[in-house]
Amino acid sequence: MTEPSIPTLNDIIAARRHVYRYLPRTPLYHYRGLSDLVGTEIWVKHENHLPVGAFKVRGGLNLAAHLSPEERRAGLFTASTGNHGQSIAFAARVHGLKATIAVPEGANPGKVAAMQNLGAEVVVHGKDFDTAREWIMAEAEARGGRFVGPTEERLIEGVGTYALEILEDLPDVQTIIVPVGAGSGACGVCIVAKTINPRIEVIAVQSAQAPAMQLSWKSGRLVTAEMNTFAEGVATRVPFENTQRIMRRYLDDFVLVDDRDIKSAIRLLLEHTHNLAEGAGAASLAAALQLRERLAGKKTVLVLSGGNLSLARLKEVLDGE
Amino acid sequence: MTEPSIPTLNDIIAARRHVYRYLPRTPLYHYRGLSDLVGTEIWVKHENHLPVGAFKVRGGLNLAAHLSPEERRAGLFTASTGNHGQSIAFAARVHGLKATIAVPEGANPGKVAAMQNLGAEVVVHGKDFDTAREWIMAEAEARGGRFVGPTEERLIEGVGTYALEILEDLPDVQTIIVPVGAGSGACGVCIVAKTINPRIEVIAVQSAQAPAMQLSWKSGRLVTAEMNTFAEGVATRVPFENTQRIMRRYLDDFVLVDDRDIKSAIRLLLEHTHNLAEGAGAASLAAALQLRERLAGKKTVLVLSGGNLSLARLKEVLDGE
Repeated sequence: MTEPSIPTLNDIIAARRHVYRYLPRTPLYHYRGLSDLVGTEIWVKHENHLPVGAFKVRGGLNLAAHLSPEERRAGLFTASTGNHGQSIAFAARVHGLKATIAVPEGANPGKVAAMQNLGAEVVVHGKDFDTAREWIMAEAEARGGRFVGPTEERLIEGVGTYALEILEDLPDVQTIIVPVGAGSGACGVCIVAKTINPRIEVIAVQSAQAPAMQLSWKSGRLVTAEMNTFAEGVATRVPFENTQRIMRRYLDDFVLVDDRDIKSAIRLLLEHTHNLAEGAGAASLAAALQLRERLAGKKTVLVLSGGNLSLARLKEVLDGE
Repeated sequence: MTEPSIPTLNDIIAARRHVYRYLPRTPLYHYRGLSDLVGTEIWVKHENHLPVGAFKVRGGLNLAAHLSPEERRAGLFTASTGNHGQSIAFAARVHGLKATIAVPEGANPGKVAAMQNLGAEVVVHGKDFDTAREWIMAEAEARGGRFVGPTEERLIEGVGTYALEILEDLPDVQTIIVPVGAGSGACGVCIVAKTINPRIEVIAVQSAQAPAMQLSWKSGRLVTAEMNTFAEGVATRVPFENTQRIMRRYLDDFVLVDDRDIKSAIRLLLEHTHNLAEGAGAASLAAALQLRERLAGKKTVLVLSGGNLSLARLKEVLDGE
């Protein structure tokens, strides 16, 4: 099997017309209060302003625009309990396709409802995520549909469009901090930033309570790790080779932040930007606060990757739990 | 003294180039969860996604684009403890003008800091808002600068641009619900909707704990009323003739909602849209829930006018206080 190729800046530029057919650009805003806290000029990329509340929707739209007629007939298949599933459901809906999404038994009813509200068929199958995923892959194969994994090139190309927006809106950006779950967002940022201006520093961040992607990147081999974070968007137990490969080539650094500091960052974002961030979305601010000295004097963009925090979780966070 | 003229659709179209020079369009999103709650198709206009977190910034930008050279030299003057002050501060900053904003003693330090962070000079003067306002009006006059009242035509023209966005994005909208503080937002919506399609119903909403504008509209004369709402954006004690005049001509209805229901609507917006709304911003949802039967079958837009809720207030709201 040949290695998949690495998406290029050109592929990401080409994805724009598929993304902007259905989505607005998201704002990049400067916040004086956060700048004072971090001690440098801080800008926030508001991917939480997108439909479904997260950057991933860009990737689903690009993927859905490149299907064969046979794939279009059978529709999209994936396994997800989070933003990836909502992204695929959204893309299927606007493209007039069927989305079939597998979740394991006991999946969060709120997230299942969100996917169903977007018109997806949600199938409960198996006791854990891996069982659900293997089952739906077989289903896709049997029905001639398209199984969508979380790190596919078309997804990276689509999400990379937000990185282009950052460089257009702030051409003299010096550092971009981006949270990593499966890594598609970080890969999009790396490819765009390093191709256009290799001097832009790209720093990835994950929770110290789910360090698989960080440990893998640091060690140069795939390392499975404990996964105990509350922040679903950065909760990866088994690392992804495809995105590791791209990050090994381009990424400058990869840091870990404690869940406690992510929760504190959610509170700070509410206070200073009046935006609700999910854990992954706030991890970039937590990292910036941890890297204060290193960021001094650098124009820094924090990727607020998504805002899908439940009301119950928000209450916990505000109560300091 | 002649009555000021009523802004026209043409004036609002003309304001677009001054607004879009500095601001993005805001999204209008459909929410299935809210639609199920209200029992009709619900769309939310996200004015909370703008810089400074509220629709008013559109008005400030339009006003700042129409100053005389003398006014530009002396800058903008106003009195405000809220979104109006931030709007004027933002407009002044991007236009390279000085903003001088008066607040009374004891003004909220967070709001003062927000205006200072935008580069405004904030002057504390007098024991109450009226004293601060009268003082700054005299200052503006003495220094040859421009005092900006909250209901000026240039502000209405600027904020009306969001209503045009609504009609472009959802041409078959049937009802628009908009919160009223001084009334500039409601006037912008009325002028646009009624000029383009008089069959669109425009409903204004205010807190039952601050009903001055509603009582004035209902009775056809200016009625001062108690003002005890927590929702600063709809907290008007003394009504404004200029916006009453426009609303008397165009507005279909004006309802009151209890502060308790506004707080409940803040929680529902967090849960279903993952957006933080200030009280005024959530009042439109509170009104829709109250008007369920009347809205049945009508494609309805709720104006989420702003998101500037403090962390302390958010905690109260989540604790059900």
